Amino acid sequence: MTDQKDQNQDAQEVVHVPVYVEGTMEKLISLSKRKGFIYQGSEIYGGLAGTWDYGPLGLALKNNIKQIWWRRFVLDREDMYGVDAAILMNQNVWKASGHVGGFSDPLVEDLETKKRYRADHLLEDYVEKTGDKSADPKGMKLEQMDALIKEKKIKSPDGNILGDVRQFNMMLSTKVGAIQDDSSISYLRPETAQGMFVNFKNVVDSFHPKLPFGLAQIGKAFRNEIAPRDFIFRTREFEQMEIEYFIKPPKDEEDKAWEAVFDHFREEVKAFTADIGLTPSKIHELEIAPEDRAHYSKRTIDFEFDYTFGRKELYGLAYRTDFDLSAHAGMSKADLRYFDEQSEETDSEKKKYIAHCIEPSFGVDRTVLAVLMDAYREDMLGDEPRAYMKFSPKIAPILVAVSPLLKNKPQLVDKAREVFNALRKVFPGRVAYDDNGNIGKRYRRQDEIGTPFCVVVDFDTVEKDAGVTIRHRDTGEQERVDMEKLKEMLLEATV
Amino acid sequence: MTDQKDQNQDAQEVVHVPVYVEGTMEKLISLSKRKGFIYQGSEIYGGLAGTWDYGPLGLALKNNIKQIWWRRFVLDREDMYGVDAAILMNQNVWKASGHVGGFSDPLVEDLETKKRYRADHLLEDYVEKTGDKSADPKGMKLEQMDALIKEKKIKSPDGNILGDVRQFNMMLSTKVGAIQDDSSISYLRPETAQGMFVNFKNVVDSFHPKLPFGLAQIGKAFRNEIAPRDFIFRTREFEQMEIEYFIKPPKDEEDKAWEAVFDHFREEVKAFTADIGLTPSKIHELEIAPEDRAHYSKRTIDFEFDYTFGRKELYGLAYRTDFDLSAHAGMSKADLRYFDEQSEETDSEKKKYIAHCIEPSFGVDRTVLAVLMDAYREDMLGDEPRAYMKFSPKIAPILVAVSPLLKNKPQLVDKAREVFNALRKVFPGRVAYDDNGNIGKRYRRQDEIGTPFCVVVDFDTVEKDAGVTIRHRDTGEQERVDMEKLKEMLLEATV
Repeated sequence: MTDQKDQNQDAQEVVHVPVYVEGTMEKLISLSKRKGFIYQGSEIYGGLAGTWDYGPLGLALKNNIKQIWWRRFVLDREDMYGVDAAILMNQNVWKASGHVGGFSDPLVEDLETKKRYRADHLLEDYVEKTGDKSADPKGMKLEQMDALIKEKKIKSPDGNILGDVRQFNMMLSTKVGAIQDDSSISYLRPETAQGMFVNFKNVVDSFHPKLPFGLAQIGKAFRNEIAPRDFIFRTREFEQMEIEYFIKPPKDEEDKAWEAVFDHFREEVKAFTADIGLTPSKIHELEIAPEDRAHYSKRTIDFEFDYTFGRKELYGLAYRTDFDLSAHAGMSKADLRYFDEQSEETDSEKKKYIAHCIEPSFGVDRTVLAVLMDAYREDMLGDEPRAYMKFSPKIAPILVAVSPLLKNKPQLVDKAREVFNALRKVFPGRVAYDDNGNIGKRYRRQDEIGTPFCVVVDFDTVEKDAGVTIRHRDTGEQERVDMEKLKEMLLEATV
Repeated sequence: MTDQKDQNQDAQEVVHVPVYVEGTMEKLISLSKRKGFIYQGSEIYGGLAGTWDYGPLGLALKNNIKQIWWRRFVLDREDMYGVDAAILMNQNVWKASGHVGGFSDPLVEDLETKKRYRADHLLEDYVEKTGDKSADPKGMKLEQMDALIKEKKIKSPDGNILGDVRQFNMMLSTKVGAIQDDSSISYLRPETAQGMFVNFKNVVDSFHPKLPFGLAQIGKAFRNEIAPRDFIFRTREFEQMEIEYFIKPPKDEEDKAWEAVFDHFREEVKAFTADIGLTPSKIHELEIAPEDRAHYSKRTIDFEFDYTFGRKELYGLAYRTDFDLSAHAGMSKADLRYFDEQSEETDSEKKKYIAHCIEPSFGVDRTVLAVLMDAYREDMLGDEPRAYMKFSPKIAPILVAVSPLLKNKPQLVDKAREVFNALRKVFPGRVAYDDNGNIGKRYRRQDEIGTPFCVVVDFDTVEKDAGVTIRHRDTGEQERVDMEKLKEMLLEATV
């Protein structure tokens, strides 16, 4: 469950040079708080490590991203069924899935302070500091890490001796019900996926879908990360968008029909990143080698993104065979076989089989972070330096800000309000009315929160019916357009 | 934290006769599972009490309701700021809010079986069984319930002696981080409200809003209900839509400016119930008497709904004064005072004050249940009995189903697909293509899931360009319309 690393990248010695303004991460965290994108969770109480709260603009951005995903993968398809399973599930779900037994991080304790650390992180830090690549923890088992820490005499960050490397389960648990014994243990789901496998039979019984078809879900998940870090990248509470797409099992080893489905989703993942405006050159596909895949997976691709802190997993795509449904059928004793009416078998028992599954998995918060990071820009506009967020108009929290040239002229204000009200009927919640300070300041303020368009109502608008001025965020260019043309431009930019 | 009961109703001896088909609840639960609205949580594992999973149609219905709410209360307003705070919060949040100390149910244990029961529920059952109204637990304190259970010699449902009535905290707790001591305790939030109070200062600092303004949030909350019951009405995991609306503190006792805001939201709550099509006569306002309100509340109205199992709380509206912000300011030591630039005070310290708060609070799942229950109908259509869901077109999971008259005629199928594709561009995810069985069966199937309109493409459509047939769910009436008129009708029905 540690991150998959880019083995290919290492092998080819590709030097990774992301094109980010220096200090982008610090600037982003600061801007996020200042402008209302993302705040530290429970901030006035000193926070709760690994939790973050979305402010008004961050929530709008996140909602736009989720809506685009839901539309592409669910609403615009006829083969996808949305579900929303509870976060709390019967504990046997996680026994079947392997999470109770195996969902753990290798931890090591500072014998003085009793603080615990991820063994792989300590080894990575050691490699970075010493250049000794023989201590690289990639793909290592717990025993190997334990031996290495002892062999290299690696100390804790506080300089103390470390204990043995042990597994530490990453699921958060709680007790549900009046009686507080082991039977009442429940876990905060560490992934949304199992909510779909457990509802496979329900959806089949309700809708009788023909294979292939998929279940899709957006929802919160929780992991007790020992070292939450990198802003909203590695957190203890996060949101996922996942699909479990079910296909017929291959007839034999030669039957590669699943590859077409796999490739379809590979393209769809890319299309989604294009939808939300991520820079294509920052996204990399990493084919996970057979020995690094989960034992049941026949193929896994990680989609990685060039964050400022390195190339890290953004999305995953895995062919999970029949592992999940078989595990749940075994543990629950429910018959999770699919009855294939189109099967050529005559014996009705032979028409039934466990469907195979391909899983595209998306992290919502990682996407938001990629979008924020990718969008951050500094440049000179005219003679002035500025910082702005180059969000795609499809996801920008505010699509257009409307202003009167002067706020003390009622005829300008009335007209600007009229334009504002007309536009927000078309783009609910995505139109701002901004009459604060002079026009230049308004532009800077809208640039900083990534508003692609600013519209100004001036005397020509009112007196000569000469339309409004629209100003483009990225270039600073302005043009005069009438209302019809304005709506058209905005609609075009959001399709 | 037990439910507020309808005192007025008792006083006036109003007999409550809801107009529901007999067995509506059982039929709803069955229909919900069969058609894919709502499934038992973790069903294949025998469930997890108090959790439910939304299937494709239930999720679509819920999402439509949430979107209408978000649009009315956030997107279409200029004074509302959406936030999305983490479910896990610093434990001090719940100490300040009073939940650690006081958020509890009065429980009593069966001394034989060790099973626990809500004392108020046992007393209610006793009143119902015996007609002895002196044991009515409404408004009773723990000690009174304890005394009554002993006085009336009330036994457990299994016939055993009961212990003392004790308080049992309803928050679900977990431990976050590597070290598992008391400092690592965190709670699954029992309400979304605190996520807004804790972000009050953040939003003020980012957006400098003028009073009055509000924060709004939709999200999951958790309560360890001892007796989850009534389908999705009383569950352990549920979703809330809440607003904390901040106003200037009254100058003195005579200053009733807050009443206008309170009344505004009272009207908005009603307008929302109209949006989603709830029958107005099933909604009742219950003014909570001063002695039954929380000590800090100056006014509380419950909006109750006539469920099949009784008149129960659907929404709440409370004037909470400065209780919440003051409590958090006290516990966190953060300065949560609002700096009022428009204040006439000259001393800048005197321009600062703790804002007062009015809280409209909505349960998502209770809304879904009210909508489902209210929509369930049985009637005769022609000579045939049918069951159907009378959802408003604004929230029906499927707005329109499109069919070819015959599925083996390519020219009909092609045209039907064309109509289907044209409509789903306008109503993403809300158009079904249904060619299963004969037309009559399709109508019944769509009736059962509450689809307001069915469109059929027949030979006249193709050969005479004579438009399509649209059939209305509630009346069974059909009319012929061209495509333009069809789109117009559908758009009108959803506005």
